[in-house]
Amino acid sequence: MAGPKITHVAVTPIAVLDAPLLNASGVHEPYQLRAVIEIDTDAGVSGISEAYGDDPTLANLRAAAPALVGVDVFDLNELNRRVALALGAVTPGSPTELVGRASRQKTVAQTYGAFEVACYDAQGKATDLPVCDLLGGAIRDAVPYSAYLFYRWAKHPEHAVPDDYPEDDWGAALDPDGIVAQARRMVDTYGFGSLKLKGGVFEPEAEAEAIAALRDAFPELPLRLDPNANWSVATSLRMAQRLEGLLEYLEDPTEGNPGMAEVARKTTLPLATNMCVTSFEEVPEAAALNSVAVVLSDHHYWGGFRASQRLAGICDTFGWGLSMHSNTHLGISLAAMTHLAAATPNLTYACDTHSPWQREEVIEPGALRWSQGSLAVPEGPGLGVELDRDALARLHEQYLACGVRSRDDKTAMLRVDPTWPTHRPRF
Amino acid sequence: MAGPKITHVAVTPIAVLDAPLLNASGVHEPYQLRAVIEIDTDAGVSGISEAYGDDPTLANLRAAAPALVGVDVFDLNELNRRVALALGAVTPGSPTELVGRASRQKTVAQTYGAFEVACYDAQGKATDLPVCDLLGGAIRDAVPYSAYLFYRWAKHPEHAVPDDYPEDDWGAALDPDGIVAQARRMVDTYGFGSLKLKGGVFEPEAEAEAIAALRDAFPELPLRLDPNANWSVATSLRMAQRLEGLLEYLEDPTEGNPGMAEVARKTTLPLATNMCVTSFEEVPEAAALNSVAVVLSDHHYWGGFRASQRLAGICDTFGWGLSMHSNTHLGISLAAMTHLAAATPNLTYACDTHSPWQREEVIEPGALRWSQGSLAVPEGPGLGVELDRDALARLHEQYLACGVRSRDDKTAMLRVDPTWPTHRPRF
Repeated sequence: MAGPKITHVAVTPIAVLDAPLLNASGVHEPYQLRAVIEIDTDAGVSGISEAYGDDPTLANLRAAAPALVGVDVFDLNELNRRVALALGAVTPGSPTELVGRASRQKTVAQTYGAFEVACYDAQGKATDLPVCDLLGGAIRDAVPYSAYLFYRWAKHPEHAVPDDYPEDDWGAALDPDGIVAQARRMVDTYGFGSLKLKGGVFEPEAEAEAIAALRDAFPELPLRLDPNANWSVATSLRMAQRLEGLLEYLEDPTEGNPGMAEVARKTTLPLATNMCVTSFEEVPEAAALNSVAVVLSDHHYWGGFRASQRLAGICDTFGWGLSMHSNTHLGISLAAMTHLAAATPNLTYACDTHSPWQREEVIEPGALRWSQGSLAVPEGPGLGVELDRDALARLHEQYLACGVRSRDDKTAMLRVDPTWPTHRPRF
Repeated sequence: MAGPKITHVAVTPIAVLDAPLLNASGVHEPYQLRAVIEIDTDAGVSGISEAYGDDPTLANLRAAAPALVGVDVFDLNELNRRVALALGAVTPGSPTELVGRASRQKTVAQTYGAFEVACYDAQGKATDLPVCDLLGGAIRDAVPYSAYLFYRWAKHPEHAVPDDYPEDDWGAALDPDGIVAQARRMVDTYGFGSLKLKGGVFEPEAEAEAIAALRDAFPELPLRLDPNANWSVATSLRMAQRLEGLLEYLEDPTEGNPGMAEVARKTTLPLATNMCVTSFEEVPEAAALNSVAVVLSDHHYWGGFRASQRLAGICDTFGWGLSMHSNTHLGISLAAMTHLAAATPNLTYACDTHSPWQREEVIEPGALRWSQGSLAVPEGPGLGVELDRDALARLHEQYLACGVRSRDDKTAMLRVDPTWPTHRPRF
């Protein structure tokens, strides 16, 4: 009487086309990296998941993978123990650059979480249950997502791409009109019911004008702005005053819990974060300082589904709102996010997603269905999505060819604009 | 693709013989009440659990039970929603008298938790997995428990029992020698590796003498003392000074988080609680005041397994130790406690249990095996224990005959000693 045991783990890095999206660090490179994890078991069922694909993440995944053979896919405590042991000598690194400080706890959590999701997929296939049922049951049939608006260039710089690089057709968005047009297309295409603007790129006043233009163009839709901690406390206070009443929340205006707390004390705007509360180590300080009103969870770096549920419980306990963070991702992660969100009662805000920016996919089509800005919980056992092996092979070839091996928006920007200021906060 | 759906829920109150154990409230009555919950499903599998059996608890269980028909045993979020809806008009009550303030959240949690455990039992039977696997996997094969020592009389008062009432053979324990003798028998019989004394009964100095006697008699065993908040802050500080170095923790010396925090600031003794942190509502105050170092979880009132895991996550996050509380219980609850404890990595102390005081049982023998103070995780799917239907019928008859309908140690004591002081704290 036991569950399926892992017999083999495969970690395949892939690269997918990405758009020249601007943020506080710089600009997205032409290719974003992901890793696809596959586990096989002695019961015939398998499981998949998706993780970051940069070199530090791959090193951790590959260091842990061989140690997982023999683990029961239900024995997540043993999975965690083996990952932690395997990473005993690993130096903490923060492969995702935008999600706060590195720590050993976070390194283990990121690596464990990648495998845990695949184990849940296998659990679901072994029990003929969708992952959301294994997480306590879906309280919603579909999960609302927010449009994720970015300042962006029309094309990547010529030096960064091969001659035949297929640019997308979104065009540039560098001012309020561009952002409103981008939002219009997002809303028309997907039906999103809320809008988030990635800020921290231009002068804060210019970004506030974009928010005001969005408010005029979409009077019914909740708005969010995320300067990625690129504002000082003084700037944050000045902008919070201007933005009050316009936003459902202001995300990470400034860096660190003490600075966030200082801003929070002087504004009625709820402050959200995926930068100053990114691991359980950072929760007590946030609770003590009352620095945040909303936490953006993310199973990729909080450490999988169970850790995300633990975070949800903490948010409920401390009266914090709960939203969901997104990095560039494909359909496996989107399915995982949707199952988790469906089974999280106190997910109080629509989730972030980069999906509209992705033109390539690694799963068989048909499992993910958008309707009115929401994604239906995928049907079928486990995550409810299947690998497209031809796509996996092609995207792995693209990984091998593209040369990108880490997430480095700053260097990509400095090659275009050597005067780009790299100090933080810039404003 | 879905799990078994509930077709019927049975709630059967039972009464079991109990010993005249003394505590801060008074004395245990000759019968303690439990409720046995059985759920049937459309897949043929069933599930059982055990809850308090007093009238307020029964009323809540019976109010919710009919609403659960049709619920998927994996859909715990729906279970919780239905319980909360069914109890919409229920007045909060604290049936267990010793575990803190009543609240609506706690009333729902207690009721939900009773059914959730039965659903997990059914989940395990449907998937052929032990409950500990459904909770993340056992990180220990056996769970250590602590001996639970009580001041006690040899017999119940004559007015309280029928002529043929079968008293146990433990005899009285009313002084240090009596407590040491009781501990000796507990350790010899079960092999317990730690000792907890229920205090709050006699003058604090007398109880400290019992602790000192235990230290002399069992120099290797960790000790705990639980005055059940029957001491003032001043008394707690005086006694903490005396007990420093003797206890692994001092449990609930005084009432409420502010008082506990005042004591905590002035002693190196870790303070534990199952009285000032008994629901998630009370966690933020405890975190803000640093009032406790150890929380005693209890799936019966925290709200089942998932809520207990959430509490465990909070304890891990805030650096609190985690132990497990016990009320009078039988083998179903003991199996549930053992599965939960086995799957909780940061359970940092041996669990409490009243088991040695119980002479009657409602499960088929053989599933629960003690060895060296620890209980092996029961084998077999689900909780791994089966109802003894003859015993259930007999204990239900005993319930009908005994007349006890609530937990009221105070009135039981006042009938013996009308001068028993009912103000708190007494010392």
